[in-house]
Amino acid sequence: MQILQELAAKNGPLCVGLDTDPSYIPLSVLQKYSSPAEAVLDYNKEIIDRVKSAGSACCCKVQIAYYEAMGLSGMKAYAETLRLVKEAGLICISDIKRGDIANTAAAYAKAHFTGDFETDIITVNPYMGFDTLKPFTSYCSPKNFSEENKLGAEKGIFVLLRTSNPGMVDIEQQQLVSGKRVLDAVGAELENISKEFSAQYKDMTCSPVGAVVGCTEESDARILRDAYQDIFFLIPGYGAQGGKARIAATLLDKAGGTVNSSRGILCAWKNSPTCLEKDKEGSLTMDDLGDSAGCAALEAKDDLLGAVKELKA
Amino acid sequence: MQILQELAAKNGPLCVGLDTDPSYIPLSVLQKYSSPAEAVLDYNKEIIDRVKSAGSACCCKVQIAYYEAMGLSGMKAYAETLRLVKEAGLICISDIKRGDIANTAAAYAKAHFTGDFETDIITVNPYMGFDTLKPFTSYCSPKNFSEENKLGAEKGIFVLLRTSNPGMVDIEQQQLVSGKRVLDAVGAELENISKEFSAQYKDMTCSPVGAVVGCTEESDARILRDAYQDIFFLIPGYGAQGGKARIAATLLDKAGGTVNSSRGILCAWKNSPTCLEKDKEGSLTMDDLGDSAGCAALEAKDDLLGAVKELKA
Repeated sequence: MQILQELAAKNGPLCVGLDTDPSYIPLSVLQKYSSPAEAVLDYNKEIIDRVKSAGSACCCKVQIAYYEAMGLSGMKAYAETLRLVKEAGLICISDIKRGDIANTAAAYAKAHFTGDFETDIITVNPYMGFDTLKPFTSYCSPKNFSEENKLGAEKGIFVLLRTSNPGMVDIEQQQLVSGKRVLDAVGAELENISKEFSAQYKDMTCSPVGAVVGCTEESDARILRDAYQDIFFLIPGYGAQGGKARIAATLLDKAGGTVNSSRGILCAWKNSPTCLEKDKEGSLTMDDLGDSAGCAALEAKDDLLGAVKELKA
Repeated sequence: MQILQELAAKNGPLCVGLDTDPSYIPLSVLQKYSSPAEAVLDYNKEIIDRVKSAGSACCCKVQIAYYEAMGLSGMKAYAETLRLVKEAGLICISDIKRGDIANTAAAYAKAHFTGDFETDIITVNPYMGFDTLKPFTSYCSPKNFSEENKLGAEKGIFVLLRTSNPGMVDIEQQQLVSGKRVLDAVGAELENISKEFSAQYKDMTCSPVGAVVGCTEESDARILRDAYQDIFFLIPGYGAQGGKARIAATLLDKAGGTVNSSRGILCAWKNSPTCLEKDKEGSLTMDDLGDSAGCAALEAKDDLLGAVKELKA
């Protein structure tokens, strides 16, 4: 999380969401590939290349659901995508929202912090209780850090705190008799874990345990940013989901965070007259789609940095 | 869920948990295989064969975490295991505990109700809200049923209600200002969904939306069984996790349920003097392990049916 925080300061707070559903690729391009998974992987590669060369983002978030939906070939494309993100010098967040108990949680941690699906940071669902976080946080000690070999050595988790969907009122927002909301019970535990880490590792400037906080409601954004000042946020809901840059900027205050945009980047070609024209003619290429996505990433970065500047003014 | 309920009445309530971590297979057997995933798949095959021929269980629950932990070869063994369970005429439950929003939830539903990872029933985490259940329940309408082609046509979900780990007090058991516990807010929603299904499909005898209820506390088991009489339960926590058959029997009342045993079956060879002796000699085979597991499954079935009988007496 510390390296992600540093990269966000350098490249800006954008997180490029590789929720690459094959349906986001126009049919005229998709059908040039022998399988949807190959097309998805190639599209991801084009996007990662452009993000790397433009320095438009600090990380990519790969949403595993879209790869699972393509079966075994999808899982291969998933593993390969993680590899490409890490090779590009970007932090790789695997949006897997796993959560389970004891041995099973340990198996999930092993699955996503080592081996074919090894990533830097994962998202975690805390519903079954705080004992379910331990198998993940046990991978997060910074003992393997060195200045030369920082990338890939750092593991972290983003725990679901306040998500960006309407249904978040059903459980997360429910009021407890203690006066807290359910999500605050989760937040308090994240602070406890973070304090334990900072007590143990004096050089650590950012807790490896972050929180997912959607940027869909301004008042709540300020409350949560003030409540959890030292926790780094993964911020979904920007762009296609309706979240405004201004709300994201509020959440980027204090310990900061990274703001995800998925469809706004993956489907950017739909707003490009050139791409639409080429699609009609049958001359559209993956390279064209990559260009549109690359530009959309740069625009998102500028939009976010502009909002941050405005908030500080 | 309806077919599972019927199979449970016929074969008894046991669910065989294929949480097959390679470490559960003795090294002397494991090293005969070219990869852990191959050994795991072969062990699963031995167990499924015995469960099928003995009629000792109504379903198998495959815990995906252990397969993810083996990477791409693990996912292949996972897909193959699901196929074997279905081929054996048993209901296949995929313990995946997924939960996500909108398009992403739809991708998970597609991933596990179609294609390489197609299963009959999945477990679902409701934390992000009840809108996250819809993409899954939309696969659960019984329109594809026919007497000739029942198996494989039925889809269902088990939603986490009361899990069997100590941390379940952190969120699930928290008291809301409404007077309910968080888990009861989930339960109430499950009842709503079930009522919608039964209003729409008059012939349906069991809601396709079940609940996960651990059998670790007797008082709570009775409360939950009485509160959700028409909901079929998936019951973890029996055996290795310390849950007693008597508590499981309480949960098997009313609409009934299926009681999972994983390690109690997978590690049964550790209690077999013959297996231990053969392991020492280096003559232990996968067939031997399968025999131990098969016997343990029969014993678990008898233990559960005995407890049910005693409760009714």
